[in-house]
Parts: sequence; C-alpha cells; structure tokens
Amino acid sequence: MEAMKGIIQKYQHQRISLVAAGVTRHRSIFNGLKALAEDQPDSKLSKPEVVIIHDAVRPFVEEDVLLKVVTAAKEHGAAGAIRPLVSTVISPSADGCLDHSLDRARHRASEMPQAFLFDVIYEAYQQCSDYDLEFGTECLQLALKYGHVHAKLVEGSPDLWKVTYKRDLYAAESIIKERISQHICIVMDTKDENHVGHHLEEILKNELNHVKVTSGALCPAGRDLEQIILEQCYSYVCVNVMSPDFEKTRRLLNMLEESNLSILYPVVVISVYFLDYKSVPFDQKMENLMQIKEYAKEVKKRNILLCGLLIYYPQEEQNLQASLRQGATIIATLIKERNSGLVGQLLVA
Amino acid sequence: MEAMKGIIQKYQHQRISLVAAGVTRHRSIFNGLKALAEDQPDSKLSKPEVVIIHDAVRPFVEEDVLLKVVTAAKEHGAAGAIRPLVSTVISPSADGCLDHSLDRARHRASEMPQAFLFDVIYEAYQQCSDYDLEFGTECLQLALKYGHVHAKLVEGSPDLWKVTYKRDLYAAESIIKERISQHICIVMDTKDENHVGHHLEEILKNELNHVKVTSGALCPAGRDLEQIILEQCYSYVCVNVMSPDFEKTRRLLNMLEESNLSILYPVVVISVYFLDYKSVPFDQKMENLMQIKEYAKEVKKRNILLCGLLIYYPQEEQNLQASLRQGATIIATLIKERNSGLVGQLLVA
Repeated sequence: MEAMKGIIQKYQHQRISLVAAGVTRHRSIFNGLKALAEDQPDSKLSKPEVVIIHDAVRPFVEEDVLLKVVTAAKEHGAAGAIRPLVSTVISPSADGCLDHSLDRARHRASEMPQAFLFDVIYEAYQQCSDYDLEFGTECLQLALKYGHVHAKLVEGSPDLWKVTYKRDLYAAESIIKERISQHICIVMDTKDENHVGHHLEEILKNELNHVKVTSGALCPAGRDLEQIILEQCYSYVCVNVMSPDFEKTRRLLNMLEESNLSILYPVVVISVYFLDYKSVPFDQKMENLMQIKEYAKEVKKRNILLCGLLIYYPQEEQNLQASLRQGATIIATLIKERNSGLVGQLLVA
Repeated sequence: MEAMKGIIQKYQHQRISLVAAGVTRHRSIFNGLKALAEDQPDSKLSKPEVVIIHDAVRPFVEEDVLLKVVTAAKEHGAAGAIRPLVSTVISPSADGCLDHSLDRARHRASEMPQAFLFDVIYEAYQQCSDYDLEFGTECLQLALKYGHVHAKLVEGSPDLWKVTYKRDLYAAESIIKERISQHICIVMDTKDENHVGHHLEEILKNELNHVKVTSGALCPAGRDLEQIILEQCYSYVCVNVMSPDFEKTRRLLNMLEESNLSILYPVVVISVYFLDYKSVPFDQKMENLMQIKEYAKEVKKRNILLCGLLIYYPQEEQNLQASLRQGATIIATLIKERNSGLVGQLLVA
C-alpha cells in the first residue's frame, strides 16, 4: 500500500482509489468491485454504470480499445478483448500424453481489458463459489455462468499481450524506447538557412524517415519550444552555431527541468558543436568537455541524459557531408538507445 | 532457394539438404518427409529412425529439449514440447460472442520441436486429406488421427516461444545481445599486479557480477587468447598500459579477424588507455583519436565494433576509483548495446 501511495504521489495522479488485493485474481477483483458498490459499509465511491477490468501486466492499452469494450458492454452486458491464438492448444491426458488438440481457427486467446455493466459482474461475483474464487481466471466466464450474459468479443491489438517472461520486459522496454524516440526537436540559434546546422537538420530528416523532426527556438520567450515540451517530445538536439559555450544548452535544460517532462521517461539532450579544429586551440575544447561532464552529472539526477557531439568541419564539401552523416548516425544511436552509461561524453563525427 | 544456398555457404554448414516448401505448413513438412523417404524417386538421403520437426521462428531451441523429444518419440512414437497457457482460451459463437471458455489448467500450448518415428509421421501424412493439408496446424494431431499414436508431451522452456510480432524481434535481439555479453575477456600487457589496469579488472568483476571476466595475454604466442576466441567470447577489453599506441589492439583485431568469430554476431573491442592528461600534450592524444576512427572503420566491415576509452588518471586515490567505476560503466554499456553507431569513438572516464 505504501509503495503504491508513493507512486501515485510521484506521478501526481488525482483519481485513483486503492483497495487491498486478495490472495487470488478473482478475490482481488471482487475486492475492487466491493469498493464501488453501494451496499457495502464505508462505501465512499459512487457506483458506476460500467466497470473496466484490466491487468497491470498489459501496460500498452490504448484508449480506443477501452472505448470499444465499454460501448459493447453497455449493449451486451459484458465485453472483452481477444486475439488470435499463436500456438495450437491441446488437452493432455492424465499420463502426460496428447488427448486431443483444438482447432486453432475456432478458438481465441482472451485478453484484457474487459468491461461489464456493474450490476452484472458484481452479482456474478456475489454468487461465485469458493472454487471459482480460488481457481478461476476468466471474468467473462463468471458473467456467463452466473449472469447468463454472452460477452461481446472485441479484436484487440498485438500490444495487449501480457508481460510475463524476461523476454517480455525486453520487448516492453524496446516498445517504450521506440515510442518516445518518434519525435526529435532541433533547437538552433541561427536563422541563416545556409548554415551547416541546417544541413544537419536536413540529413536527420532524410536518414530518420520514420521520425518527426521539428525546430524549436529558445528566443524570444521560447513559446514554440514550450509547446513542443508539452507535446511530450523526449529528444532534443541543441545546435550551437553562434557561441562556443553551453549557454543555450543550459537554457534548454532549465526549461526541461521546469516542465517535469522527465518524470516518466528519460529525456535525451545532445549538444552539437561544429569544430573547425585547425583554427581552435584544442585545450579550450578539452575544457568544454570537462564542463559537459559536470552538467551531465547534475541533470542526470533529474532523468535528463546529456551528451555532446563535435562535428568536424572540413573545408571540402564531400568530407563535410560525410561528417554530417556520421553526426546524424551518432544522434540516432544516442536517441534510440537512451542509455545513461554514456552521459557527459563528447562524441566526435 | 538461392537465398538459402547463400546462407548455407556463408555460415559453412555441411549437413543441410534443401527441399522446396509447399503453400501450407503441412504441405511443406510433407515435402521434407518425402525427401527422406525410400519409396520416392530420386531419393538421395537415407531414411532416419526418428525425425524432428521444428519452426525457424523458434530460434532459441536447446539441444536438451531436442534430446528429450527424440527419446520420448522412440518410446511413444511421437512427442512434442508444450508450455502452460498465458491467457485463457475461449470459443466464440458465430455472432462474435462468448460461447464458452476453457479451463486454463487443463490445456497447454503446443510448441515445437516435435519428434516422430519416421514411419509413424510419414504414413500419417500419406493418409492426410486435402483439408488436413490445407488447414491443419498440428502434426501431433495427425499422428493421433492416422497413426493412433498418443504423443508424449514434454515441458519446454519459455525460450521456445514463436517470434511472431515486432515486439518478439525486439525480445529476440535482446536475448542474443544478453547471451553474447556474458563473457568479457580482458587483454593486458603487464603482469604488474599493482597496476591500475588490474584495479579496472577488479571493478569490472565486482560491478558485472553476472558476467564471466577472464584474462587473456597476447604474448607469448597468445595460446590462451586463441582458446578464449574458440570458446566464442564476443567482448574484449584491451588494456594498454606500457605503450600509448594501437599495436596491442591491432594484434588482437588480427586474431579476431582470422578466427571468423564475427561471422555470426558482432564482436566488441574496447581499447583502454590511462590518461595522465597533465603530463601528455593533448594534440598527441587527438592524433590517437583519428587513428582509432580509421581502424574502427576498417574492422567494422568485418562485424567488429571498436571503441576507445580514455580513463583519466588523477593523483588522488578517491578520484581514481571514481574514474575506474565510470570506465567500467562505459565498458558495460558498449558491450550490452553492441551498437555500430558509436564505433571509432574515444570515450572519456
């Protein structure tokens, strides 16, 4: 209970009531339903017309499927998401041999979410046997057995799968990383359209063709950047053209910190410098490097992952294109992997 | 056919015969069985006692489960791997509503591999109806229906799952990366046990406590290193203590190239230098940096991912420990992610 309260507070949720779980799935759901019922002592919540039952192990549920099951439940009394079977289902005999196999085309996997008219599912749970509460796994079956309601079955998306094994955690992590890497914001301090910074932007747009690349400006007021942060863009490329310091990056980092965006997922910020390294004494660059390490350490505490990228700026057009393409590859890698182990590094393209 | 022949040649497989697939699963399997049968024209292969049927979409099959299904097939005539059901299975009615749900505890998912006495499964396929060949999905069911053989069911591991959706590709990639990152070989050019390079080794052993960390030497003859390469270690940390050049790293890279180890999976090599950066002119380091970029570009063509790591070497013991720990974090990140986008970079701890 304390852990859950901590999570609710951390993410500033407003409309959550906690109920103690039972020792089995069905007992836990029954406890949740009792908290919503009017005939229970100390009931503080008002009874809903429709209730949705969902598993936390299916974190990628979309609003769309919730709407579908709720609408179908209003009409049919109960509804649940289903998926095609991936493997054939068989029934073993007592001695561990095949008794019979089921026709895969005539069966489906029952997934979550499911929705019910509150009275249908609450009454079904009240009539449940101890055996049901102990060993049952399917709410739709309870609505059928005790409420005589044939639930409407709604096709769900593959993302409704149950995070069960270690491999499912890998898959979930990759899905989240992919989703939050679909939008990159380029923050640039020049409007000069011929500047090499704009060439980098073009190359990013071409090479990452499934990604939305937008521009944001820090000044004046940075309103468009505030809007982009509100739209939950988790990846920023801060191109420093006019000044060789971290001033722009620092202002971006301040805005990100104030927005609380990184509370849920890590935000990646890549600070890009164009390095005409024959003309600048290298010791000065080394000082910059040390500076970014310190900033990176500081903002990492707030789940912001900061890296630097030096793009070598040769005179020859052909080599410049190669540098920019390598820069784009490094940016894409840092955004995709979103790994905290490389924060504070100054990468070179 | 040409694509498969190319794969067989590339990976130097010796004992594979190709058979053209059919338009359905069962027709493909039947074609494979015919190629092994003695009663077919042009048969070049000899009939086996037991045949294993497997899906390529289950790439993580272990020898252990193959042995189990073959042994059980010899005794029972047929055997197949099963797994517990993750979701409840239901049967829909014609109007898309719940007809009934199956007791999850009394059913199993039928997975692959499956094994059969050759005569049992070949005769079953010969008796198959066109309907079976067109719509059937379960070989065990054919052995039951036409051979009256009740297949023995063998518990498989979770890794036998079917790579079906995009998320499964993510999971498969992560499983492979995890497996090939379980063994790190540290190559060091000093036996001085007090050298800071050995402190790095200790820290790696402590921080990566699920990983096997071994030492290999390049000279004399490098026999132990050859052995480690033969054992398919895919991660190398080359600690350069005595010399500030890439000579050691180059010798390691040559050995790796000659071994053909990287034919299947990318090999990561991290070349580590200890940088007392107050005493060395920085321009010289910059030249090293350019050197590693060229090497990295070259070996990347052969699926070897080379990075450099400079570990800052301060006088104070406490700061040194912090540098070494950060170095270990960077090494762990590069090995775990195994991403080609960062090759040739010189990272700083």
